[in-house]
Amino acid sequence: MEIIRSNFKINLPKVYQAIEEADFFAIDGEFSGISDGPSVTALTSGFDTPEERYQKLKKHSMDFLLFQFGLCAFKYDHANSKHVTKSFNFYVFPKPFSRSSPDVKFVCQSSSIDFLASQGFDFNKVFCSGIPYLNQEEERQLREQFDEKRSQANGAGALTKCPVTIPEDQKKFIDQVIEKIEGFLQREEKRTLELNPCTGFQRKLIYQTLSWKYPKGIHVETLETDKGKLVVGHNMLLDVMHTIHQFYCPLPVDLNEFKEMTTCVFPRLLDTKLMASTQPFKDIINNTSLAELEKRLKETPFDPPKVESAEGFPSYDTASEQLHEAGYDAYITGLCFISMANYLGSLLSPPKTCVSARSKLIEPFFNKLFLMRVMDIPYLNLEGPDLQPKRDHVLHVTFPKEWKTSDLYQLFSAFGNIQISWIDDTSAFVSLSQPEQVQIAVNTSKYAESYRIQTYAEYVGKKQESKQVKRKWTEDSWKEVDRKRPHVPGPCYHTNSFTAAGIVGKRTLSPDPREAGVVDRESEGISDPELEQTDYCADPLPEGRKKAKKLKRMKKEFSLAGSASDSPAVLFEVPDTW
Amino acid sequence: MEIIRSNFKINLPKVYQAIEEADFFAIDGEFSGISDGPSVTALTSGFDTPEERYQKLKKHSMDFLLFQFGLCAFKYDHANSKHVTKSFNFYVFPKPFSRSSPDVKFVCQSSSIDFLASQGFDFNKVFCSGIPYLNQEEERQLREQFDEKRSQANGAGALTKCPVTIPEDQKKFIDQVIEKIEGFLQREEKRTLELNPCTGFQRKLIYQTLSWKYPKGIHVETLETDKGKLVVGHNMLLDVMHTIHQFYCPLPVDLNEFKEMTTCVFPRLLDTKLMASTQPFKDIINNTSLAELEKRLKETPFDPPKVESAEGFPSYDTASEQLHEAGYDAYITGLCFISMANYLGSLLSPPKTCVSARSKLIEPFFNKLFLMRVMDIPYLNLEGPDLQPKRDHVLHVTFPKEWKTSDLYQLFSAFGNIQISWIDDTSAFVSLSQPEQVQIAVNTSKYAESYRIQTYAEYVGKKQESKQVKRKWTEDSWKEVDRKRPHVPGPCYHTNSFTAAGIVGKRTLSPDPREAGVVDRESEGISDPELEQTDYCADPLPEGRKKAKKLKRMKKEFSLAGSASDSPAVLFEVPDTW
Repeated sequence: MEIIRSNFKINLPKVYQAIEEADFFAIDGEFSGISDGPSVTALTSGFDTPEERYQKLKKHSMDFLLFQFGLCAFKYDHANSKHVTKSFNFYVFPKPFSRSSPDVKFVCQSSSIDFLASQGFDFNKVFCSGIPYLNQEEERQLREQFDEKRSQANGAGALTKCPVTIPEDQKKFIDQVIEKIEGFLQREEKRTLELNPCTGFQRKLIYQTLSWKYPKGIHVETLETDKGKLVVGHNMLLDVMHTIHQFYCPLPVDLNEFKEMTTCVFPRLLDTKLMASTQPFKDIINNTSLAELEKRLKETPFDPPKVESAEGFPSYDTASEQLHEAGYDAYITGLCFISMANYLGSLLSPPKTCVSARSKLIEPFFNKLFLMRVMDIPYLNLEGPDLQPKRDHVLHVTFPKEWKTSDLYQLFSAFGNIQISWIDDTSAFVSLSQPEQVQIAVNTSKYAESYRIQTYAEYVGKKQESKQVKRKWTEDSWKEVDRKRPHVPGPCYHTNSFTAAGIVGKRTLSPDPREAGVVDRESEGISDPELEQTDYCADPLPEGRKKAKKLKRMKKEFSLAGSASDSPAVLFEVPDTW
Repeated sequence: MEIIRSNFKINLPKVYQAIEEADFFAIDGEFSGISDGPSVTALTSGFDTPEERYQKLKKHSMDFLLFQFGLCAFKYDHANSKHVTKSFNFYVFPKPFSRSSPDVKFVCQSSSIDFLASQGFDFNKVFCSGIPYLNQEEERQLREQFDEKRSQANGAGALTKCPVTIPEDQKKFIDQVIEKIEGFLQREEKRTLELNPCTGFQRKLIYQTLSWKYPKGIHVETLETDKGKLVVGHNMLLDVMHTIHQFYCPLPVDLNEFKEMTTCVFPRLLDTKLMASTQPFKDIINNTSLAELEKRLKETPFDPPKVESAEGFPSYDTASEQLHEAGYDAYITGLCFISMANYLGSLLSPPKTCVSARSKLIEPFFNKLFLMRVMDIPYLNLEGPDLQPKRDHVLHVTFPKEWKTSDLYQLFSAFGNIQISWIDDTSAFVSLSQPEQVQIAVNTSKYAESYRIQTYAEYVGKKQESKQVKRKWTEDSWKEVDRKRPHVPGPCYHTNSFTAAGIVGKRTLSPDPREAGVVDRESEGISDPELEQTDYCADPLPEGRKKAKKLKRMKKEFSLAGSASDSPAVLFEVPDTW
C-alpha cells in the first residue's frame, strides 16, 4: 500500500493495526546516496573497527535523504498455515511546514539517483507527494512556537498550553483513561496506578492530555512489558542509522550511545544478511545479496513459505521483480527470514515446520547487524561490546601518496600471499598469511625512509593514546563481553567444518561467539569495569548524568521504548506496538 | 523544444543553427537549491561588497545542481516586422559515464525542490533522461584514460592519439581545412594562415584533428573577431556562475579572475533585472520580478513586441504562465529585453521603433549583473573594478550573540531612523540617516563593554590588513575605474529626478556611472597601477604567469572566446557562435 502525503492520515489506523497484530515486520529504506566522502571502498575498509565504521557512516552517509521507507508486517494464519502480509511504501520528503520551519538540505549521489531512475523509481512522487516529517527536537520547537503565538493571540501574558486535538475514534478511550486517573488521584491510598496497554499513538495522546490537564505536573512513566516485536532487515545498519537520524534525533557521537539509542528505538532487530552469512547457511548460500538470496531460498534444502497479502493490500509477485522499491524489498526480506528460520526448525529432531519470530532458534541472531566488508568482524553487536579479533598478522603501512597497490605488492613480495586494505592515500593495512612474518617485516623496515611499518597493535595503541580513550585492547583472541545477559545456550550450528579466523579467503561469520573462537568474558571471570560502564545512569559525572537524562527521556518518549520506573504515580503498560 | 539524453545528438545541429542565426538569445537555469549555508537573508547582506557576494555565492550555492537549462534564440524577421523565437529546454543530469568517471554529489534544498514540485517540474525527466555532461578537465581526463586503454589494447608502448570521429556532414569542411593547412605548411614563405570563420563545434573538430594529425605539435589559436552575441538573462549572476562551474571549470578563487573567465565564456551579457531597476525604467516599473515585469511591459508606455515561434518549435502562451520552466523563463526574459530596448528607442527624436541587440542605446547595460539586495551597489561590473560607494553613514557593530534586532534599535534609539543589515550572529552593519552622526556613535561607544562600534572605513581597513590585500579604498565618492575602454558617451536617462545615494528608501540604480555620481578615473587623469593590474599576462610573478597561461588556454578552448595572438602559425576567425 502506497502511503503519501494525501492519504497518510486516513491510512494511519491501518498502519497501527498492521503493526499491532503482526508477528514480526520487515523494513527497508531507499536513499539518495551512500557515501558523500571517500569512495565506498574507502568507506568500508576491511579492517575497520565497529567504532570506526560507525563514525565513517555517520560522517559520510547521514546527509543523504531516506525518501522511501518500506514496512511489511507478517502475521501467521494458523488455521490456513500461511503468512498474511501487509506491505506499506511510505514516500517521505521534508517539505517545509512554514517559513520558520527547518529547510532541510540533503545530498544526492548521481550514481544512486541514476540507479533508482533506471529501476523506475518515481522521484516526482517523493518530491510532490512525500509525507513531511520532523524529528523530536524540531517538533518540540514547532510546538513551542505555536504555543507562543497562540498565547500571544489570546492576549495572555503567561503561556497556557493548548488542549490536545483528539481524533474522534480515540475520544472514548482517552475519556476512560482520564476518569480512571481522576478516581486514582481522589483515593490517595494507592501509590501507583497501572493503566491498560495501549498503542504508541494512544500513549502520546495520554501524555499530551495529562500535560495540559494537570499544568502543575503529574509523574507519568511508560512501563516496559516486553522487548518489542522483531524487526527484520537486510544489511540493515544504514537503514537503522538513517531511520533514527531522520525521524528521531541526530546520531550520537559515541558508538555505545548509538547502541543504547538503537535498542530503545528497535528493541529487537535481526539482519537477514548476517543470518545468511552464518552457519549453517554460510556453506549453502553463495551470494547473500537480497535478490540472489531470495532466489536461492526458493530451492532445496529450503522451502518457500506460503504467503498471501491481506485483503485490501496489493500483492507482490516475486517472479516479476520489483526490487528497490522499499515496500517490496521489505516483503522479500521477510520471506527470506521465514525460509531461513524454518530451515533451522527442519534441523531439529523431530523437525519443526514453522518457526515463529519468538523462537529460541533465532535468538543468536538478535541485535547483531551485518558489517559490510569487514574481514574479521561479522557484525556490530548492539547488546554489548563488539568482537575484538586478534589482528596479529596485520601490519599498518604508511607511504608516499604516489604509491599504488603494485608498490605494496612489490614491497611485500618476499612474504607470499598478502591482502591489502587501503585506509587513505598514504596508508593501508596489509595482512600477511602468517603472524610470525609480522616481526620480520617490522624489523626489515626499521631503516626505510620512504615508508613506515608498524604492527596493528602498535597502530591501535598510538591511535588510542592520541584520542585519550581509556579502552584496553586484548591481543590474545577474540573476546566478547556480554554484560547484559548470561550466555544464551541456543543452538550451535557446527554442522560443517569450522574455518579458522586467520585463514585468507572465505570469511568465518557467526553470531555465536563460540563458533568464531570468541570466549565469554563473564564466564571466564574476567571483569573490565570500563568495558562494563555502558549504563550512563551509573556514571557519576555530570556529562554522564546529562546523557542518562537524555536517554531516559528518549525511552519515555519513543513508542517502542520502555524503562524501569523510580516511583511513578501513574504507570502505563506498553504493548508490542510501534 | 525539449532536449533530453535520447534526442540530444539528433537535435544538436538545430541548436547550433538557432544560435548561429540569432540576433541575441536569452538563458535561464533551474537549480536544486539556492543557499547551502546561511539563510538567503544572510547570504545577501545589504552591505556586501561585490567580492564578498561572489565569495558567498561560490561557497554556499555551487553545490546545488543546475538541472534545467533554458535557451531561447531571437531572430528578427525584417520582412514581417516580427521576432522569431527558437526555445530549448535542456534537462541535464551528471549520469556517471562509467565506474571510473566522476560520481557527482549535489545538494538539494527542500524549499526549492518543494517549490519546483508545486510548479509541476518533472524531476523524473531530469534523473531518467537528463543529458550527461563533463566539464573540460573531466573530459580531458576521460579522453586520456580512453587513449591509454586504446593504446594498451593496440599493444603499442607509446601513446598514440586516436583519430577524431567526424560527423558525416562535417567531413567535407574538415577535409578542406586540412588541405589548406597542408598547402600552407609546404609553402613556408608565409608566417600565418587565417582560416574561414566556423562554428564552435567545427573549431573543436579542427583542434582535435590537428592534434592527432600533427603529433609533434602545431601552433593554433582562435582569433577574436567580435564580442559574441548578446546573451540576456534575468537576475543572472547565479545562472552565469552555475553554468561556468558546472559545464566549464570550477569557479576561480578571486573575483577578478571570475570576471576575466566570464567575459571569455560570455563576452556580452545583459541583465534585464538591472535594466528594469535603472532609469528610465526605475520610476515606471515597481516590481522587477520576472513575472511582474513581463506583465508590466504589456502595458503603456510599453509596447509588447510581435513574436512568433519558428516552425517546428512549440509556441508559448504568455497568458497561461509556465513560469519556472527554464525555456519559458528564457523566452519571457527575451520579451522583456525587447520591450525595454524598444522603449529606449521611443525616447529618441525621431523615435526608433525597433532597437536591435547591437544598438548603442543598450550598451550601458552590457556586462553588468544585478546584485540582489545590495543597498548601494546595483551591479557587478564584469569589465573592470566595481563601484565603491562611500559608506560614511555606515557603522560596523559587534555584540553578544544573544542580541536581537530590537537590541540594536534600542542602542541607536537616539539617532532616529536606522537601517540594520545583519552579517552574522554577533555583528551587523547599521546605517544612520546622516554621516555626521557616525562619529558621535563611535565616541559614545568607546567605553562600552558588551558591544563595539567602528566606522565602515575602519572595518574595511582592518579586514584588508588581515587579508594583506593591497587595494586602496577611496572614501570620497563612488568611483569606477573603467580601465579597458574610454567612457562610452551613450544616452543618459536623466528623465526623472535624480535620487542621491544616501537617501534611505528607494534605491538609486544606474549602469551609467555619471548618473549615480560616479566619476571616470581615466578622464580625471588618476591612475592606480594596482587597480589596473587585472591583466595577468602583465603580472611578473610565476603565479601570475600560471594564471595567464590558464586564462589563455581557456580563451583558446572555449567556443565563445577569443584572444589576440602572439605569432600564430595558423589562425582561425571566430564567428558569433556558441
